[in-house]
Amino acid sequence: AMAGCGWARSVRGLLLDVSGVLYDSGADGGVPIAGSAEAVRRIKASGLKLQLCTNETQATRENFVRKLRALGFDISVAEVTAPAPAACRLLKERGLRPHLLVHDDLVPEFAEIDKTNPNCVVLGDAAENFTYANLNEAFRLLIGMEKPVLISLGKGRYYKETDGLKLDVGAYMKALEYACDVQAEVVGKPAKRFFESALAELGVPPEQAIMIGDDIVSDVGGAQQCGMRALQVRTGKYRPSDENHPLVKPDAYVNNLAEAVDIILQQL
Amino acid sequence: AMAGCGWARSVRGLLLDVSGVLYDSGADGGVPIAGSAEAVRRIKASGLKLQLCTNETQATRENFVRKLRALGFDISVAEVTAPAPAACRLLKERGLRPHLLVHDDLVPEFAEIDKTNPNCVVLGDAAENFTYANLNEAFRLLIGMEKPVLISLGKGRYYKETDGLKLDVGAYMKALEYACDVQAEVVGKPAKRFFESALAELGVPPEQAIMIGDDIVSDVGGAQQCGMRALQVRTGKYRPSDENHPLVKPDAYVNNLAEAVDIILQQL
Repeated sequence: AMAGCGWARSVRGLLLDVSGVLYDSGADGGVPIAGSAEAVRRIKASGLKLQLCTNETQATRENFVRKLRALGFDISVAEVTAPAPAACRLLKERGLRPHLLVHDDLVPEFAEIDKTNPNCVVLGDAAENFTYANLNEAFRLLIGMEKPVLISLGKGRYYKETDGLKLDVGAYMKALEYACDVQAEVVGKPAKRFFESALAELGVPPEQAIMIGDDIVSDVGGAQQCGMRALQVRTGKYRPSDENHPLVKPDAYVNNLAEAVDIILQQL
Repeated sequence: AMAGCGWARSVRGLLLDVSGVLYDSGADGGVPIAGSAEAVRRIKASGLKLQLCTNETQATRENFVRKLRALGFDISVAEVTAPAPAACRLLKERGLRPHLLVHDDLVPEFAEIDKTNPNCVVLGDAAENFTYANLNEAFRLLIGMEKPVLISLGKGRYYKETDGLKLDVGAYMKALEYACDVQAEVVGKPAKRFFESALAELGVPPEQAIMIGDDIVSDVGGAQQCGMRALQVRTGKYRPSDENHPLVKPDAYVNNLAEAVDIILQQL
């Protein structure tokens, strides 16, 4: 699967997508993908650095890590790069006071942020909070601004849960973009700045890092745009048609995270 | 306002937008625009043909006409061209069986249409029916089709009601377009085919018809694309900045429908 991957010899750190790589998500909390918990342990034992790079916005990092640990993953909060903390840094830098249209469980991530008299809207995967009333409220705030500022935590089209496919934040982002004639600023994969944050937290330059993900565009394409190598796993949202993607070609395919780690550790 | 409008001499019929031209809409039923009911009577007395050309999708034509009559307008059902009946013709022509995501009050317009085992989605201004569950349901049906067919009753960005601005059907159309990677087929203004239906019902060729509307793009631009003259009223959603629109220039501006009718009748 990774013939000619001599470049893997120079690797010093791995960025891992979470949903579809470590576990399959669902309303029931999700199930680990076979071999992934052991693979995380082997990465750490090898001395390679590791950082999770996720677009998860339905929970604080604390609760997200609690869930991962319950599923058997040896992960700490500092090892998670997620959109909400990145958005908080951006809000502070630019003096922005957000109106939040996000999942209830994400709200504590914005505890330190001034939310009075909003001058921007932050949109996450709000799930059940995507009501007609809440969408109209966010829209009215935006259209009432002299220059509307819409910050979107990711731009995914949809995702799969145990009870079926769900529209992701990107669909609602497009609705507000069209209604307000504005372009959202995306915080999360595949934004270059977000990968750069994850690399900074990993402490490794892009040419010595490998991204491993299941999303051909957001994970693989986004990481390659930042100068990283990127592997696509054949788990999660992977589809065979991804291997004919017109624009993005992974540096290698692997059946799952366990196989990726096998091959990378053999090169070291 | 209409200096040099000698072309109005050849006019034989008028297409009128409704909301913002005849009345201002609202949850309370709306209020007539001063002089508009009298203007409709004068058009009819003059022998000019008249057809309402509306993107209204929150009521059947029967109920819509009942509301207009209660507001003082002498209008019959046959004088209304609206998206739902046009969509029904399209569905029948192409053997399409719709899943409806529309306002409850619009559903009777589709009474004659086979809705079993849907092979397309018809999207209207569903208002309170734009719930998270309903949007996910429409999305799942579309993404499950070999070639998704999304028919949108108009593509408006937003509209104003007495209790504030509301997202219009176009915003939800964009959400589903993005999630399913599909382009919606728009039935309603500004689609050329919709104006052509209205002209057929008016019984007048485009060069002898005038469109009167408050929407610079959907009413004025759409009608001009069909070879009609088009006037913009300074009522409804008209904004002074419309007069600097980069792409669309009305054949004339008028303060309201009453003034438009004054001037047109003077030319005859």
